[in-house]
Amino acid sequence: MTQLSRFLYGGDYNPEQWPEDTWANDIQVFKQAHLNSATINVFSWALLEQREGEYDFSKLDKIVKELSDANFDIVLATATAAMPAWMFKKYPDVARVDYQGRRHVFGQRHNFCSNSKNYQVLASKLVKKIVSRYYKNPHIKVWHVNNEYGGNCYCDNCQNTFRDWLKYKYKNLETLNKAWNMNVWSHRIYDWDEIVVPNELGDAWGAEGTETIVSALSLDYLRFQSESLLKLFKMEKAIIKKYDPVALVTTNFHALPNKLLDYQKWAKEQDIISYDSYPSYNMPTYQSAFLYDLMRSLKHQPFMLMESTPAQVNWQPYSPLKRPGQMAATELQAVAHGADTVQFFQLKQAIGGSEKFHSAVISHSQRTDTRVFKEVTELGEKLEKTGSTILGSKTKTKVGIVFDWNNFWSYEYIDGITQDLDYVESILDYYKQFYKRNIPTDIISVDDDFSQYDLVVAPVLYMIKSGLAEKIDQYVKRGGNFVASYLSGIVNENDSVYLGGYPGPLKDVLGIWVEESDAVIPGQKITVSLDSNNYQANLICDLLHLEGAHALGNYNSEFYKETPAVSENKWGKGTSWYIGTQLDEAGLSKIFDHLISIVNIKSLTETKTDLEITKRVTKSGKELYFVLNMSNDTKDLPSEFDAYKNLFTDKSANKKMKAWEVQLLSKL
Amino acid sequence: MTQLSRFLYGGDYNPEQWPEDTWANDIQVFKQAHLNSATINVFSWALLEQREGEYDFSKLDKIVKELSDANFDIVLATATAAMPAWMFKKYPDVARVDYQGRRHVFGQRHNFCSNSKNYQVLASKLVKKIVSRYYKNPHIKVWHVNNEYGGNCYCDNCQNTFRDWLKYKYKNLETLNKAWNMNVWSHRIYDWDEIVVPNELGDAWGAEGTETIVSALSLDYLRFQSESLLKLFKMEKAIIKKYDPVALVTTNFHALPNKLLDYQKWAKEQDIISYDSYPSYNMPTYQSAFLYDLMRSLKHQPFMLMESTPAQVNWQPYSPLKRPGQMAATELQAVAHGADTVQFFQLKQAIGGSEKFHSAVISHSQRTDTRVFKEVTELGEKLEKTGSTILGSKTKTKVGIVFDWNNFWSYEYIDGITQDLDYVESILDYYKQFYKRNIPTDIISVDDDFSQYDLVVAPVLYMIKSGLAEKIDQYVKRGGNFVASYLSGIVNENDSVYLGGYPGPLKDVLGIWVEESDAVIPGQKITVSLDSNNYQANLICDLLHLEGAHALGNYNSEFYKETPAVSENKWGKGTSWYIGTQLDEAGLSKIFDHLISIVNIKSLTETKTDLEITKRVTKSGKELYFVLNMSNDTKDLPSEFDAYKNLFTDKSANKKMKAWEVQLLSKL
Amino acid sequence: MTQLSRFLYGGDYNPEQWPEDTWANDIQVFKQAHLNSATINVFSWALLEQREGEYDFSKLDKIVKELSDANFDIVLATATAAMPAWMFKKYPDVARVDYQGRRHVFGQRHNFCSNSKNYQVLASKLVKKIVSRYYKNPHIKVWHVNNEYGGNCYCDNCQNTFRDWLKYKYKNLETLNKAWNMNVWSHRIYDWDEIVVPNELGDAWGAEGTETIVSALSLDYLRFQSESLLKLFKMEKAIIKKYDPVALVTTNFHALPNKLLDYQKWAKEQDIISYDSYPSYNMPTYQSAFLYDLMRSLKHQPFMLMESTPAQVNWQPYSPLKRPGQMAATELQAVAHGADTVQFFQLKQAIGGSEKFHSAVISHSQRTDTRVFKEVTELGEKLEKTGSTILGSKTKTKVGIVFDWNNFWSYEYIDGITQDLDYVESILDYYKQFYKRNIPTDIISVDDDFSQYDLVVAPVLYMIKSGLAEKIDQYVKRGGNFVASYLSGIVNENDSVYLGGYPGPLKDVLGIWVEESDAVIPGQKITVSLDSNNYQANLICDLLHLEGAHALGNYNSEFYKETPAVSENKWGKGTSWYIGTQLDEAGLSKIFDHLISIVNIKSLTETKTDLEITKRVTKSGKELYFVLNMSNDTKDLPSEFDAYKNLFTDKSANKKMKAWEVQLLSKL
Repeated sequence: MTQLSRFLYGGDYNPEQWPEDTWANDIQVFKQAHLNSATINVFSWALLEQREGEYDFSKLDKIVKELSDANFDIVLATATAAMPAWMFKKYPDVARVDYQGRRHVFGQRHNFCSNSKNYQVLASKLVKKIVSRYYKNPHIKVWHVNNEYGGNCYCDNCQNTFRDWLKYKYKNLETLNKAWNMNVWSHRIYDWDEIVVPNELGDAWGAEGTETIVSALSLDYLRFQSESLLKLFKMEKAIIKKYDPVALVTTNFHALPNKLLDYQKWAKEQDIISYDSYPSYNMPTYQSAFLYDLMRSLKHQPFMLMESTPAQVNWQPYSPLKRPGQMAATELQAVAHGADTVQFFQLKQAIGGSEKFHSAVISHSQRTDTRVFKEVTELGEKLEKTGSTILGSKTKTKVGIVFDWNNFWSYEYIDGITQDLDYVESILDYYKQFYKRNIPTDIISVDDDFSQYDLVVAPVLYMIKSGLAEKIDQYVKRGGNFVASYLSGIVNENDSVYLGGYPGPLKDVLGIWVEESDAVIPGQKITVSLDSNNYQANLICDLLHLEGAHALGNYNSEFYKETPAVSENKWGKGTSWYIGTQLDEAGLSKIFDHLISIVNIKSLTETKTDLEITKRVTKSGKELYFVLNMSNDTKDLPSEFDAYKNLFTDKSANKKMKAWEVQLLSKL
Repeated sequence: MTQLSRFLYGGDYNPEQWPEDTWANDIQVFKQAHLNSATINVFSWALLEQREGEYDFSKLDKIVKELSDANFDIVLATATAAMPAWMFKKYPDVARVDYQGRRHVFGQRHNFCSNSKNYQVLASKLVKKIVSRYYKNPHIKVWHVNNEYGGNCYCDNCQNTFRDWLKYKYKNLETLNKAWNMNVWSHRIYDWDEIVVPNELGDAWGAEGTETIVSALSLDYLRFQSESLLKLFKMEKAIIKKYDPVALVTTNFHALPNKLLDYQKWAKEQDIISYDSYPSYNMPTYQSAFLYDLMRSLKHQPFMLMESTPAQVNWQPYSPLKRPGQMAATELQAVAHGADTVQFFQLKQAIGGSEKFHSAVISHSQRTDTRVFKEVTELGEKLEKTGSTILGSKTKTKVGIVFDWNNFWSYEYIDGITQDLDYVESILDYYKQFYKRNIPTDIISVDDDFSQYDLVVAPVLYMIKSGLAEKIDQYVKRGGNFVASYLSGIVNENDSVYLGGYPGPLKDVLGIWVEESDAVIPGQKITVSLDSNNYQANLICDLLHLEGAHALGNYNSEFYKETPAVSENKWGKGTSWYIGTQLDEAGLSKIFDHLISIVNIKSLTETKTDLEITKRVTKSGKELYFVLNMSNDTKDLPSEFDAYKNLFTDKSANKKMKAWEVQLLSKL
Repeated sequence: MTQLSRFLYGGDYNPEQWPEDTWANDIQVFKQAHLNSATINVFSWALLEQREGEYDFSKLDKIVKELSDANFDIVLATATAAMPAWMFKKYPDVARVDYQGRRHVFGQRHNFCSNSKNYQVLASKLVKKIVSRYYKNPHIKVWHVNNEYGGNCYCDNCQNTFRDWLKYKYKNLETLNKAWNMNVWSHRIYDWDEIVVPNELGDAWGAEGTETIVSALSLDYLRFQSESLLKLFKMEKAIIKKYDPVALVTTNFHALPNKLLDYQKWAKEQDIISYDSYPSYNMPTYQSAFLYDLMRSLKHQPFMLMESTPAQVNWQPYSPLKRPGQMAATELQAVAHGADTVQFFQLKQAIGGSEKFHSAVISHSQRTDTRVFKEVTELGEKLEKTGSTILGSKTKTKVGIVFDWNNFWSYEYIDGITQDLDYVESILDYYKQFYKRNIPTDIISVDDDFSQYDLVVAPVLYMIKSGLAEKIDQYVKRGGNFVASYLSGIVNENDSVYLGGYPGPLKDVLGIWVEESDAVIPGQKITVSLDSNNYQANLICDLLHLEGAHALGNYNSEFYKETPAVSENKWGKGTSWYIGTQLDEAGLSKIFDHLISIVNIKSLTETKTDLEITKRVTKSGKELYFVLNMSNDTKDLPSEFDAYKNLFTDKSANKKMKAWEVQLLSKL
């Protein structure tokens, strides 16, 4: 089984923070809101193991029993994400050394060193205790390993383990010195123990992950740290699977997305992807859509929305209230993009700790006559009615947009020509072109099978690892369509530049080479002419030579006026495009109007609309259309859906959609 | 005696920085300016004790003698604020460990660890030497302990002492774990030595005092550090009192105000409050007035203006010249609000050190024909003429505004819904309403007797310690009038939220409850309608339910349009108000016009004026009106003072007041 | 010999980063571009000495041979600027302790502790090996010692050596305590080992070099660190000279300029000055001109442009492309101001390392049909044609502008009245007055002979060391002309204020004294009236008393309206001026129009022009005029040059000069 048995509506519940005599009532209130699930035990290590090796499960037993009795699906966490104070005291190496070179002490959370043997042993023992105790409980549907992994360590244990990791990867120092280009700045090394971790005391400076001398070293360190944490996950997972081969195992992914973990590697180890989603008030809706598409695409399967907030989060700079209906729309956007759960952090609002102003289903007021509780309940009714239909339904796309952690890392280490490089923003520029047209997209890795897509878009594909260029070449030759941008094809997997002109091994398939790249100063007016309209060029302007391709648009400024900015190349049975600058949205739209029509990709609606529309298809082939008004204004439903039924209401579709209204439409 | 025997005009004098043969002339120049006092020995430890236990008082003897011979009142400092270099070398633990976890070495000042036994012993010995040597000198009127205490330490000594402090406070770990809500994030501890100091290596992050996981821990640490420094003060004071029970003992308070020291606790240990006042060029005059009112209210007694500058300070971003008359107005504003001294830092401008561009009575030019020296002399003449009348006169108010260090700390640790919380700014919003109406106010603690006020205003009373809600309830029931605002009544003294709805234990007396709070984005237009005018709401908008209260104004924006923003509640014989948002000044004025008329509080003038007016009443009942033109423009004196006499000139009051003119008026 | 034997066109070449079989082709390509020189071995330590004491010169031998065979002039570096990893491991003290108090480890470059005996011994041995091996090669024309020295260390070795340095300087503690004013804040010390380095753990705070308590200590530390690094240079130089008394020895200076090294002291030890020039896209052209004039003036001799970029640098926030012609103009500007070389960093673009996007003669494309390569080649043709004429030609000026590192340091440590003090900007304000008039200037030290100039301009001469005031006085008395500004004459060399009024020992020669100084708030409108026009006053407004001088302009604002802002004083046979505020450019122009006419200094052209014009005079007396269009627009050549010949083209001068065109004109 790699699927949930029902659509989960629940979230994080921390009864250990409350008197036991309040739990029964909590569960009654959850039921009133139509919740059917709870995530527990996320931060209970200090309660479960008060002294090393002395365990006390009495409280957890009771919690599990009460939830089981109420027929809740339980998401049971392994409690390893926050270490008890005694552990820091007894084994100081369990704590990280930070980027500034300082060993930390007890405090905060998520701060274990992944290469601490002490942490590994203690965590293993705990997990074994928990799993062996509860694995027979059929209500436990998901094992929640640790919590929001992330954060790098620079301690001696990590340094030693890193040296071993490098030995395994490079075999000998000659290979390493060559791969890392160590003759630059006298960096050649002659012994493995000359390698030091790249923090502020060594090779790096500036904000963590942005500036380094030996980028190949720093990239390997990021890979190593991501893998070190993944090893911890696999360690816990192995213990769980030994006892319980049935329930799903996952750890919750997070951030926009988390730069430190290569989630495409991590995804392989997850039974199901789970994600914590906290869009800020000013995050555009296409960005949250992008993140959900990314999560779904990691396994090309529905995912769990493991955390989200019923109202305000506490830790963003500003957390305005969600407007009436906005909470449900925000949650359902995840479902529209592939979530098979709606889970909140948190079910009951804590009275202490740094997140005490993070909202919950049961708020500090502990009343159920509140707006938030009512909206949670209404959403619960909708999900109860439609969850079994939605569960497991799939999303089908003809477009793949490449998102790659090695590029994320290497692109943002680039020390060159402009300080404004931002990997996610560059990807979003392109994602938005499909989002606003209601064309479904997958967000894919460079290892995904491209042939399943009519169009592959790979913005700022700066790093081209071995084999990738050939793969792209074959894909296009066989009829695929491929879009590339500025700053692509520059380096190999060791961040060494491909000689012979940019974009390196992509020159042939794109039919161009780039002689120079101008840096655009913010505010500088440089335009590109497309169909006799001018559009602003930002960030970087590549100066192209056409070698087989033809120009779709030329620059209209500077000494490179009338030279090509955007090119198109027929290659084998397919076509490729190169977009040599960061065009403004209107300019990019112009190009995508053109290429979408060539590739013949269809929107989910033929009507022009500002509504967001997605489609999921059930195993039985039923098409579910999610139509979302992600705004404060009233909007018209595209007329082709007029005759559809709204599964939330069992009535025919609303033609005028209110602010934040969501309809789940299906053909009559 | 808890009062000065004459009005002091003087300041910090550091003759040890100068050749001895210049001292006599210095004193002549001071006399020319009508000075009658000097503060000495503030930073002389390295001179007095050149090697541990070897003291040399020859220079200080001579200084004391010369000032005594000149009949100067001496403010004698205990010299413990800056440690000699040998002490850091011999006893490294006397220096602090900072928020970043680093032990400091010799340098700067005010950097002793309050829990260093070595510091305590060495300081005690020094103070004993000084006091025993000079206590018989009748010219010593004030003992000036240390200097501008402040700054937290995070060393092992502090950590150990903190654990003891916590043992004393909480008795057992069960109580502590509960008070601190330690089941959140697995923080429960099982041994006192698991507690670590909350700096960047532990539970805190961000700027010191702003971000922490366990706010109850961090709050206790702030309390502990404030008390640790206070213990040092008391240690010195006990030595002084043993020898000299007569002269006043004080330490100089500072900053706007100093967040790190709970001055309301410290005030109890002072014979007289003293304060260092350095308003920057762009500090509004109501803010300095507020600070003086706070200092006066700490003991409800006149205070010493221990430091101020005759011209420019050196350490502010910009220090423009004080315009002609501005210096005297600035000094007299302190007197108008309760100061019984005018003291400068400094009397003679140093030629070296980081403050060498801090101004002085004797400047680097060492001339007396300068503008500054002339203005100092003119002010001296005025104070010489009126000082004995002013000395000891009292300020009477009907309004108390609550300012509370525990709220200062906890409010700025709030991790929630908006990043723009600023405790002092919130208090000033309300203070300004009285300042601009020339209504005298006390700035009181939560422990003050409220019954002496017709109106108690308690903005952002976020933390309500045990007993306080009952006290407010009783105060209003018996006829008091009480104003509360957004973000009030949220937590108890351990920063744990009161359940059952905001504003917690204040719900009854205010007749409301707050279901939700919106965060206002800077620039967002949200208005409140009062008497059919609209006013901007900022920061936070509380969504109220009236439970007994009635609305004075409703929101006029967003989905909560037409719901109450400001409410009024009759409660027993009194009335209470709740202001659920940070209204702009005009809006707040509207409300205060209304409530001041209800409570029937009178201004010191019935004429509308931009002049600042205060009143002090002498022991014999004589009313002294300070009328200050704190501006660069000419202004009209309110006509009710036309027949008054200006005690500075012995002439009738000026009807046109020049820029920065100050009149001390009394009825003929 | 202290001169090059031919005009060098070359730059940094790092063949050790490339396969040996590519070198021959590289050299052919360089020749194609008319290069005649290469700088090698800058970062090769790790290759040359793979284990302590085991040297391998095989690769360097081959490089030297190939370049020699190609008749290239070799600039041979000593390779000591980046230490091998094994050295950090074996001798951790070779790495610096930073301003935050942290010992660094292997990584980056330029990070040796100058007082590490281990570093000194290891570097000496290496240099001896290199020099003894290659000194007989006649192609080695220049020894390039280390690389871009700079960066302070705060380790124990430095602390101990600093104490010795202080003992030598002050002889006894009494003298030191007095010089440093140590009675302020109890800083008096009684043992040399009480002195601690002034980093963040001690007396300093804020950004390095900006805030300190004992500025005399911090200034001495800057002097000490500059001298410690200079000792390293001298150590290497002595070894070189022992073997090779003929070839020139230099180290490359850098930055705008480098604040940490007193280049005027360093210049004495250089056979020829060399400078790395990287103007950013938004650096005004007068600033690069200033830097070149400074470099030329350090020895009053032509200098080497040791590094510059053929196209983009990688490490600036934005590096737009140089527009067609701009590269050559930028390089020739250096030549126009005295450079006898044009050298690039780098000749071949690296594929790895943090500077891989730094441009090169051979780019990543490795093509020669690029715009950049063509422009490099065209410049090579010009230099090949004119280099022998230019080589060794001198610049003659009648104006000296004082730039002094002790003032640079002390001025930016000023803790007073405004935070906006910037030493270089203040000097540039004055430099620009001559630049835009095409009046040649030297940028001189306070130790230069003033009598060779008709006019000496000394802006913000804050620190006046012993003897300097007398020197200025004599210079003016004997007919010299002297310009001073606000914030001058304030302190002696220990940063102690001169008593008796500002500008201290300059009062007499200037005929004024300054009673007060106002700080101008950015945006504040304060004007100075000159010839009935008003000009904006910024930063600081001095309030002057004329004591012999007469006013040239008065303030027209504030309470000091109609008091003098600018004064002129006849003194002996000369004249002096005092400019008491930071006037806007137009205001300063007004004053300089006046004083240039009085002093009778001529421009290189009588025509008003925006072209930049300089003159170099060959040994034979031939006048070479460099006429540079440093802009994107066409400009007219001043008509007096109409009949001149352009030595680059051997044709008569172009009358219309294109964007970025440069002409080297000489009379027919």
